[in-house]
Amino acid sequence: MVRVGVLAGSGYIGGELLRLLLQHPEAEVSFATSRRYAGEYVFRVHPNLRGVTELKFVALDPSKLADSADVVFAALPHGESVKVVPQLVDSGLKVIDLSADFRLGDSSQYPFWYGYEHPRPDLLEKFVLSIPELNRDQVRGARLVASPGCMAITTILALAPLFRTKSLGVDPEHVVVDAKVGSSGSGGKPSLATHFSERFSVVRPYKPAGHRHAAEIEQVLSSIAGTRIKVSMSAHGVNMVRGILSTSHLFASGEFKPVDLWKAYRDAYSGSYFVRIVKDRQGPFRLPDPKLVVGSNFCDVGFETEERTGRIVALGATDNLVKGAAGNAVQSMNLMLGFDEKAGLEMAPLHPV
Amino acid sequence: MVRVGVLAGSGYIGGELLRLLLQHPEAEVSFATSRRYAGEYVFRVHPNLRGVTELKFVALDPSKLADSADVVFAALPHGESVKVVPQLVDSGLKVIDLSADFRLGDSSQYPFWYGYEHPRPDLLEKFVLSIPELNRDQVRGARLVASPGCMAITTILALAPLFRTKSLGVDPEHVVVDAKVGSSGSGGKPSLATHFSERFSVVRPYKPAGHRHAAEIEQVLSSIAGTRIKVSMSAHGVNMVRGILSTSHLFASGEFKPVDLWKAYRDAYSGSYFVRIVKDRQGPFRLPDPKLVVGSNFCDVGFETEERTGRIVALGATDNLVKGAAGNAVQSMNLMLGFDEKAGLEMAPLHPV
Amino acid sequence: MVRVGVLAGSGYIGGELLRLLLQHPEAEVSFATSRRYAGEYVFRVHPNLRGVTELKFVALDPSKLADSADVVFAALPHGESVKVVPQLVDSGLKVIDLSADFRLGDSSQYPFWYGYEHPRPDLLEKFVLSIPELNRDQVRGARLVASPGCMAITTILALAPLFRTKSLGVDPEHVVVDAKVGSSGSGGKPSLATHFSERFSVVRPYKPAGHRHAAEIEQVLSSIAGTRIKVSMSAHGVNMVRGILSTSHLFASGEFKPVDLWKAYRDAYSGSYFVRIVKDRQGPFRLPDPKLVVGSNFCDVGFETEERTGRIVALGATDNLVKGAAGNAVQSMNLMLGFDEKAGLEMAPLHPV
Amino acid sequence: MVRVGVLAGSGYIGGELLRLLLQHPEAEVSFATSRRYAGEYVFRVHPNLRGVTELKFVALDPSKLADSADVVFAALPHGESVKVVPQLVDSGLKVIDLSADFRLGDSSQYPFWYGYEHPRPDLLEKFVLSIPELNRDQVRGARLVASPGCMAITTILALAPLFRTKSLGVDPEHVVVDAKVGSSGSGGKPSLATHFSERFSVVRPYKPAGHRHAAEIEQVLSSIAGTRIKVSMSAHGVNMVRGILSTSHLFASGEFKPVDLWKAYRDAYSGSYFVRIVKDRQGPFRLPDPKLVVGSNFCDVGFETEERTGRIVALGATDNLVKGAAGNAVQSMNLMLGFDEKAGLEMAPLHPV
Repeated sequence: MVRVGVLAGSGYIGGELLRLLLQHPEAEVSFATSRRYAGEYVFRVHPNLRGVTELKFVALDPSKLADSADVVFAALPHGESVKVVPQLVDSGLKVIDLSADFRLGDSSQYPFWYGYEHPRPDLLEKFVLSIPELNRDQVRGARLVASPGCMAITTILALAPLFRTKSLGVDPEHVVVDAKVGSSGSGGKPSLATHFSERFSVVRPYKPAGHRHAAEIEQVLSSIAGTRIKVSMSAHGVNMVRGILSTSHLFASGEFKPVDLWKAYRDAYSGSYFVRIVKDRQGPFRLPDPKLVVGSNFCDVGFETEERTGRIVALGATDNLVKGAAGNAVQSMNLMLGFDEKAGLEMAPLHPV
Repeated sequence: MVRVGVLAGSGYIGGELLRLLLQHPEAEVSFATSRRYAGEYVFRVHPNLRGVTELKFVALDPSKLADSADVVFAALPHGESVKVVPQLVDSGLKVIDLSADFRLGDSSQYPFWYGYEHPRPDLLEKFVLSIPELNRDQVRGARLVASPGCMAITTILALAPLFRTKSLGVDPEHVVVDAKVGSSGSGGKPSLATHFSERFSVVRPYKPAGHRHAAEIEQVLSSIAGTRIKVSMSAHGVNMVRGILSTSHLFASGEFKPVDLWKAYRDAYSGSYFVRIVKDRQGPFRLPDPKLVVGSNFCDVGFETEERTGRIVALGATDNLVKGAAGNAVQSMNLMLGFDEKAGLEMAPLHPV
Repeated sequence: MVRVGVLAGSGYIGGELLRLLLQHPEAEVSFATSRRYAGEYVFRVHPNLRGVTELKFVALDPSKLADSADVVFAALPHGESVKVVPQLVDSGLKVIDLSADFRLGDSSQYPFWYGYEHPRPDLLEKFVLSIPELNRDQVRGARLVASPGCMAITTILALAPLFRTKSLGVDPEHVVVDAKVGSSGSGGKPSLATHFSERFSVVRPYKPAGHRHAAEIEQVLSSIAGTRIKVSMSAHGVNMVRGILSTSHLFASGEFKPVDLWKAYRDAYSGSYFVRIVKDRQGPFRLPDPKLVVGSNFCDVGFETEERTGRIVALGATDNLVKGAAGNAVQSMNLMLGFDEKAGLEMAPLHPV
Repeated sequence: MVRVGVLAGSGYIGGELLRLLLQHPEAEVSFATSRRYAGEYVFRVHPNLRGVTELKFVALDPSKLADSADVVFAALPHGESVKVVPQLVDSGLKVIDLSADFRLGDSSQYPFWYGYEHPRPDLLEKFVLSIPELNRDQVRGARLVASPGCMAITTILALAPLFRTKSLGVDPEHVVVDAKVGSSGSGGKPSLATHFSERFSVVRPYKPAGHRHAAEIEQVLSSIAGTRIKVSMSAHGVNMVRGILSTSHLFASGEFKPVDLWKAYRDAYSGSYFVRIVKDRQGPFRLPDPKLVVGSNFCDVGFETEERTGRIVALGATDNLVKGAAGNAVQSMNLMLGFDEKAGLEMAPLHPV
């Protein structure tokens, strides 16, 4: 059994990490930290885990972590992680970071997107941005992993096959990503904007421009495409708790038929259990819908074409807390440690829910 | 008092017409037709109207309509309206049609978008596509009016100021419209896709390409811009009953500042009570959100810019059954008959709801 | 035009009062107070009212109120109202209080239910607890009115006909009231319990015993029944914003048939526009459902009997912000001032919504 | 590996059985039947299972079942099961029936509650009504098991400790059960009543009297109490898909304190993993709430007392498709076959969801 620790275990992503790791067949949770809830039972903060664990939160003491865990999952906020993680790295631990602090390869991007100078640019090249379906081998050999943002991974998995396929002639300048996300993506802290009466039944364009996940998407897709991709991204909050639908609008100048797109997706994901290609002729769920991945590590992808406008619509759906965060992190751990990639992640989605 | 009749009064749009017209200070409802519910009390089909009216549905008999009404609202399905409305036109009635059958000025568009040859192309030029905020004077003088599709009017009102303002240099080839709509937009007929357990909490890309409202949007915006606009539209069903948020992504090559966009919107809508410009610095509702127009005839519009990608995001929000259908039709009647444009439509939105 | 003022206009009930009063044909709003938002536009706090009013909140200065209004609606919290309202009473104003501070006739009840000694027990007998459908004439002659709690009025209207009808033999000791309420009933203040991700899809038994509205229900029903009624009440939060369904379970020892219950309800409410008796044989809405009163001042009531257990189930549904609060207050004003009882309240419910 | 078959695998309960059994460590699914979908992939009907199984539905042929399975789960409708199951019984199979056809021990109850004469009253005493937390040993030795109705098991588990504890003096004549249930409880067949626009945000008293699950509740509780219990039950549909909250109102004449109730619950469920006692002093989830059991086999129980009225409020919450149906059936199989009672059922609930 591998001993794992969770930093910032009291947030929604921390809770999801605990849900998955407490039931992981190869792992045991040695600790979960929380500044605010140190000494408190985990199930008081994550009431779903009542009866599942008697674990209590502890305060974070980086100097002691190396002794009590083999792998640490860091679910700290952006800007906080970068203050703590370097010590873990130095102590030789395996680290899976879920913040944005080690996702971007180019340190010069941090001031623009996150408003701070990266204090340890040397670490950026040591972290692998883990999207196992795209860089499985790299993750297998990694000791330090960054897990992408929830909208980033959902969008990237939907788009990667199209940018890999040069013959499609996808226009790199007009890539529109329109994301619809559940409330859990913005965390557990109450505010007027998240007050139920104010948040129920909204379609809230909370970040119509300048969304930070665009940076990760551009980084990965540019690398795949071999050319600079510019992503125009907007994010909307919708009336649900879990889930993301990412709708990408691309313009393509190449000659192609739907069958070519099918082939592109199949080639990309034939060996990847957690990516399902969804494109049916009938039924209520002919294309990806976050409703159908709730609780699971699946990312559903699909596409549609519009000849009249030369457009490809590419769709991705995930449970933002699982494949969009904790699940992808656990999947990465599985690869890093040589476990079955699916270990602890085989739960099928719930439906209806 | 003007005598009004409603054709196909048993659908959701028909019900909303009745809700508005039964309480209109200048109108009395002489009849409402329904094939299926003829003889039945209106409140059995629209249970919100219990206690409000004792009216019963009647069967449609076009030959008798001219005697019993001055204005007829036709809420028949596409393809049905075109079979019935010509007789009403010939009998001299004022007609406000809410189907798509008289919206497109060019009859050659009908086979492509609606799959039928238009039987009365001569009528198309006699109908005014009514968006009072854009063509108020035309509507004032009209006898025959077509009310636009719910997503069309919401999108058009959000985009018109930008296409009117030539100096923005909006790219006519890359106009992406990503709409999120409530369930009432697809009507009252049960199916597996609308079964509550299957429809709850979805983000369903039900029409990612080829949406028919694109035809109306292109027609109006091209006319405003003086050049051919190509609209790439996708529609998603989200977890609510009423409301549309239309998010449009434009690319603009001109030199401009946010203040120029402000001016464009203010110039366009300064005299229009039912269009509100929403662009605040704080609060949960800084931009249009359909939650804030529920039950009202308002269309909220707003925008955001993204310098990095040269993008303008334009947002429109309506209650699809009011400004997106019945309310716009009543507003059109008010203009046609010289009533106060707001008569019967002053109800403020509900909040929270 | 009567000049009306609203105290504590920034809460949800205050916002609903403003929505109704701003569009009331006989009233003009002279002021709305808010400690927190004094100087701010009303529409910044109630964004639905954008475009509807340019009114700004003012700080509460009780000494100046008498000059600027004829009627004051007080939507202050329990315990606050009792500190402010006495001055208004002394200044000769008409007052409609929406807190609990003047609802109970017996001052000795306040320590038990509300935890404070009532400072002005002399005022309690001067206030009329207004449920126009039960005491219309009393309200007509009143200068000082208390409007009941949202669950209280909904339950009382559902039960009054049964306690009036002595022949039913309703057991006064086993009256169970099981209420289901939307989130707006608990106000606009964010907390962990109202955080969207925590509140969505709950059925939360937030007050299974000891609910304060039981006091009002007992007071009114005991008076109607002529005997002491004991109410066992539980309240649950459910997944909606507006609305209450109150389900009451009674045991009755008399001989009666459903037709007798029909008669009891019809006798009670034949002249009352805002109470609708809902008991149909078919359709999705055979009995009261809060969905069908959204935005309106209706209270729907209905019943079912169960011979096997000797039980009568009585149901009431309201929009908690309208008939459950602001609407009932405006209706009371209409009676006090001799206006049409329905003035400003005729808006039909929205459906679907 | 035990070979299991599922009859009527295309409904929601059938789908949930498949979700659980396909991932059960000791079982393999040999077949799933569906009249309507025979020949179709399971994942076309249960789209959550896409990628999880390549199984196809087969037509039901009772004569062949004995060869291909060791245990059969029958999720047929009431009245249908009784036509099919007797053959399975005769062929020696282990049977777990999820319909009501073998739940009631007294055949004379069927005409009253289900409207048919039971054709095989001899079988009723051979079936064990399985609630493992109450009759674990009986289930262990059983070959034929009936799993209770979703509202029945939820209510029974909440009430059993109180009826076991004679000193409480619970009044057997005034037991009110007020249940709130998600839409999945009424199955997958579309109708006007389940049409999303009509069903969203309801609190629908769809069965205020005469609910059939009362029969099961009375049977079990009377047996526990040793006296005839009469249950007054009402069921309401609320705005969610999964989950039940059962609120029971009891009147108790004994002398007792809260600590006595705590003891009653602890004594009853100390060895039962799947029943959690929830009664906290703080936090949003101080008492059972179906939101906290979604996807899991937990039944949360809790209570509150009201001295003033002599009332005990007992609460139970389950995921109606898991502990309310498929999960309890799988738990029963585990016991029947000597597996770990939790096998295949350890998934923790999701939160937030």
